[in-house]
Amino acid sequence: MSRLLIVGSVAFDDLELPVPTPPNSGKWEMHKDVWGGSASYASLAASLFTPVDLVAVIGDDFPQAHLDSLQTHGVDVHGVERAKGKSFRWAGRYDGTLSSRTTLDTQLNVFADFRPKIPAAGRRAPFVLLGNIHPALQLEVLEQIEKPKLVVADTMNFWITGERALLGKLLEKIDVLVINDEEARQLGGHHNVSRAAQAIRAMGPKMLVVKRGEFGALLFDAPSSEQSTFFAPAYPLEDVYDPTGAGDTFAGGFMGYLAHVDSKGGTVDRAALRRAIFAGSAMASFCVEAVGPSRLLTLTGAELRARLEAFRKLVHVEHDAEALSLLR
Amino acid sequence: MSRLLIVGSVAFDDLELPVPTPPNSGKWEMHKDVWGGSASYASLAASLFTPVDLVAVIGDDFPQAHLDSLQTHGVDVHGVERAKGKSFRWAGRYDGTLSSRTTLDTQLNVFADFRPKIPAAGRRAPFVLLGNIHPALQLEVLEQIEKPKLVVADTMNFWITGERALLGKLLEKIDVLVINDEEARQLGGHHNVSRAAQAIRAMGPKMLVVKRGEFGALLFDAPSSEQSTFFAPAYPLEDVYDPTGAGDTFAGGFMGYLAHVDSKGGTVDRAALRRAIFAGSAMASFCVEAVGPSRLLTLTGAELRARLEAFRKLVHVEHDAEALSLLR
Repeated sequence: MSRLLIVGSVAFDDLELPVPTPPNSGKWEMHKDVWGGSASYASLAASLFTPVDLVAVIGDDFPQAHLDSLQTHGVDVHGVERAKGKSFRWAGRYDGTLSSRTTLDTQLNVFADFRPKIPAAGRRAPFVLLGNIHPALQLEVLEQIEKPKLVVADTMNFWITGERALLGKLLEKIDVLVINDEEARQLGGHHNVSRAAQAIRAMGPKMLVVKRGEFGALLFDAPSSEQSTFFAPAYPLEDVYDPTGAGDTFAGGFMGYLAHVDSKGGTVDRAALRRAIFAGSAMASFCVEAVGPSRLLTLTGAELRARLEAFRKLVHVEHDAEALSLLR
Repeated sequence: MSRLLIVGSVAFDDLELPVPTPPNSGKWEMHKDVWGGSASYASLAASLFTPVDLVAVIGDDFPQAHLDSLQTHGVDVHGVERAKGKSFRWAGRYDGTLSSRTTLDTQLNVFADFRPKIPAAGRRAPFVLLGNIHPALQLEVLEQIEKPKLVVADTMNFWITGERALLGKLLEKIDVLVINDEEARQLGGHHNVSRAAQAIRAMGPKMLVVKRGEFGALLFDAPSSEQSTFFAPAYPLEDVYDPTGAGDTFAGGFMGYLAHVDSKGGTVDRAALRRAIFAGSAMASFCVEAVGPSRLLTLTGAELRARLEAFRKLVHVEHDAEALSLLR
C-alpha cells in the first residue's frame, strides 16, 4: 500500500452557523469545541483510499477519543505529538448563505512552538500532503522525508503576503500546489485565473489545483491553459450545513486517490489527476453535509462510489459523432 | 431549416473598460456608441447555427450598416422596426477585474413604446427566444406565434421584483428559463442554487439554465438535482476584454444549436440540451474576446469547431473501468 504522509493542524473550532431548517431561517446556532484542523479533515478523507501517517501537535485538552477515531479509520497517529498546553483553536461565523465567513478568533496555543518530527514510516511515504502551515515548517518536513513520488502543498493569504521568500523556496520543491481562487490571484498577480495559474507554475510547481468552493476546481498542468486545463464542478448539493474543512477534505481525497492508484500499480498521469479532482470534490461534498468532520466518520465506500457515479453523470456529454455543419 | 425567432433589444452601449494591456494597468478606456442589445448578440451567435428572424425596434440614429451586417450573417431583419427618435442606450463601467459592472445610464428612448409585431415567417418559427424585455411584451409575442417547439426566455432582477405577477404568467408558458445565479436566487427564494432551481421549475418552466459567468452554466431538467443536473464550465480564457453581451450570446448559441439539431432531424432531448450548453458557452467565450459584438462578426465555423473540441478535452475524464477498492 502506498502510504500518505499528512502534516498540518489538528484543532478545535467554534462555529457559528446559520440554522439550516427552514432555509433562510435568519437564525444562527453556535457549535463549540468542534473537532477541526486541516490535517484532521484531510486525513479522514484520504483514509478511505489509502493508509495515512498523520503528523501534528495537540494540547493536553484534546480528547483521546478523536485520536482513537482516526486510528480506527486507518490513520496512524504515532506522529501526533501531545504537548503541554491548549490545542490550536479557531472561531468563525458564517454568513446566512454560507458563502463567506469571518474569523472571530485564532489561538495558536501549542501550535506556536510546533516543529514537525516525522516518524520513520512517514519519512518513507511516497505521497506527502503539506497542509497550510508556516512555509518554514513545510520546508522542514521536506528535509526529513526520503524520496517522495508526489508532494502536494496548501498555503494561504497570510503566508503569501508575509512569508513570500520562504514560500518561493517551498514552491520550487513541490509538485502540486492546491489553493483557492483568491489565493491564486494574489500569488499569481493576475485576476484572470488562467494567467495567475501560469505565473504560479513558473514559480516551481508543475501542477496547480485551484479550488473554487461551490464552483468546483480547476487543474492546470501545461504551459498554456489551451493545451491542458481541466475543470470539474462541485457536486450540486441541496443541503449544505457547514463548509468548514471542505478545502482540506478536497486535498485529502485528491491525494488519497492518487496514492490508491499507485498502490494498484497504476500511473499518476494526467488521466489519474483528473479522476483525483473528482475524488476530492466528492469527498468535499460529503464533508459539508454535517457540522465538523462528522459525515467523514460515517461515510462508507458504497456511498462514495454512488456519489462518484452520480458525479460522472453530472458532467457527461455525448458529443456529436458527425461534425457540425455550420452556416458559416 | 428550423428558423429561430429572437425578440429583444438592439441598442447602443457606452462602455468604460479597463485597458487590457498590460494586465492590471489601472487605466480605463471609453468605447462610445458600441453596437449592443440582447437581441443583437443573441442573433449573431445563433446565426452560425440556424437562420434567425429578429424582432426589435431601433431609432432613426441606428446605422443601416449594422442591419446589413445582420442580414449578411443570416439574420432576417424585416421585423426590425425603425421608429422616430433615439435608439435604446445603455452606459456602464466595469471594475478592473471585469467581474462586476455599474450601470451609469439607461435610456429606453424608442424602446419605451415598443410593441413587438411578429412578421409571418417569425410567427411560424419553431424556436423562440424571448430576450430580457418587459414580461408583458414577452407575453404579447407568445400570443402572436403559432406552434413553437421550444420557447426560451430570459429576464432580470428588475422584472422579478417589479412585475412578479406578469412574470409568473410568462413562466407558465415557456419551456426554458435562462437567467444568472443572482436572478435564480432572487426568483427561487433560496441562496442554494439547486433549491432555487427546483422552486423555479415548480413555477412552470420544465428546464432552467443558470448562467454563472466565468464559472460556467448549470442545466436543471428534473425534479431533483440528483436525478438530473448538468454542469458545464466556462471556457478558461487568458484574455477577456469585454463581458458585455456574453449572457445573450450564450442564449443565442444555446438556441441556435437546438434549432440546428432540429433542422438535421435530431431530437431536442437531454443529450442535445447538454451539447447546447457547450455551444452557448463556446460562443460566449468568443464574445468576450473583443469589444462589443465584433468577434461574433468575424467568427468562422472552423474556429467554433476548434473551440468546441478544446472544450470537450477540458471536461473529459476517463473513468476507472474497475470499481474503486476502497478501504472502508
